[in-house]
Amino acid sequence: MTLHLHCFGESGHSYKAALGLTLAGLDWQPVHVDFFAGEARGEAFRRDVNAMGECPVLDTGTERLTQSGVILHWITDRTGLLGGAERDRYEVLRWVLWDNHKMSSQAGMIRFLLNFLPAEKRPEGAMPFLEGRLAAALGVLDAHLAGRDWIVGDGVTHADLSCCSYLFYPEPFGFDREAHANIDRWLANIEALPGWKHPYDMMRRAWPAA
Amino acid sequence: MTLHLHCFGESGHSYKAALGLTLAGLDWQPVHVDFFAGEARGEAFRRDVNAMGECPVLDTGTERLTQSGVILHWITDRTGLLGGAERDRYEVLRWVLWDNHKMSSQAGMIRFLLNFLPAEKRPEGAMPFLEGRLAAALGVLDAHLAGRDWIVGDGVTHADLSCCSYLFYPEPFGFDREAHANIDRWLANIEALPGWKHPYDMMRRAWPAA
Repeated sequence: MTLHLHCFGESGHSYKAALGLTLAGLDWQPVHVDFFAGEARGEAFRRDVNAMGECPVLDTGTERLTQSGVILHWITDRTGLLGGAERDRYEVLRWVLWDNHKMSSQAGMIRFLLNFLPAEKRPEGAMPFLEGRLAAALGVLDAHLAGRDWIVGDGVTHADLSCCSYLFYPEPFGFDREAHANIDRWLANIEALPGWKHPYDMMRRAWPAA
Repeated sequence: MTLHLHCFGESGHSYKAALGLTLAGLDWQPVHVDFFAGEARGEAFRRDVNAMGECPVLDTGTERLTQSGVILHWITDRTGLLGGAERDRYEVLRWVLWDNHKMSSQAGMIRFLLNFLPAEKRPEGAMPFLEGRLAAALGVLDAHLAGRDWIVGDGVTHADLSCCSYLFYPEPFGFDREAHANIDRWLANIEALPGWKHPYDMMRRAWPAA
């Protein structure tokens, strides 16, 4: 049975789930969410799809899962793939939580404010603060990746899929891949995984809104 | 053997772990981190305790666990308590991730900026933006708690311990308990749990820095 992922191309959180589904070889289809027209924050979406008003949402046929970290867990429970060694499961979850709190949260927000919001609505005063927080997170990740091919253990895990997602997007948000040598090498490892795809090659873009 | 939690009173993330350890009846002691003097971001702490430069860190005697969501998982693996029903585990993780991304992240940051930073260093331009994000998150949680005693299932879980933590602190950060009737009722349920303690009754405060 085909899995359905409610998502849109620009959503790095959706990309984490889409990349996990793809690398695990699961049969899935995107269900496009017209995000920039407000669909995810609308009443119908909150009532019928996700009360949190967010993407991604995975419809497995028997349940509806939200939060990319939950969907990655479900993929591992279903396939045995991408979860890492049993002894590393706390370490994998540690980086997924850190990413949600400290990295993707800042990267996604800055990218949204800089690229997908009319300039006159942009909270200019918040930008240096957010950019400083992202730079600190990138520093933590780059230092961790010194001498490592993967964030945890010796193969790709949820930790990599969660932390990498926004870093593959072309729109500017304060990340310079060339300035972070360890992150650059690690992203190349991910791009070299059999079946790897760029987010815009898996999920339809929602920008600009129709 | 006594567990050791590297923490400080003002840290809501530490409180999630401290409250979980306490409610699960585990034998633990706080190890005070002189946060406002910069200890958690210092070289020694990053090298010897947590490269992420964050609290809490749980020293179990055999391993060192960081990220409150990881510590809560470990408590459940050790004791069987606070994890909720097996069928609800994705839903519990969903709210822990959401809290890390959308709620505690904003609440903790606003509270820090308003109360623990000299006014002249405060990024004033960022405040309305952060406050708007927190208000949206509080709205999602309050709506979810309508007609519910607990965030997931019919008893206290990681989801409650994660989401409640900053909401018990007295310092202003834009949360008005009386304005959120469902959150108010749910916080009273948590306060009524046998053994519940306020963060400042479990962990020494680090403010003001010595």
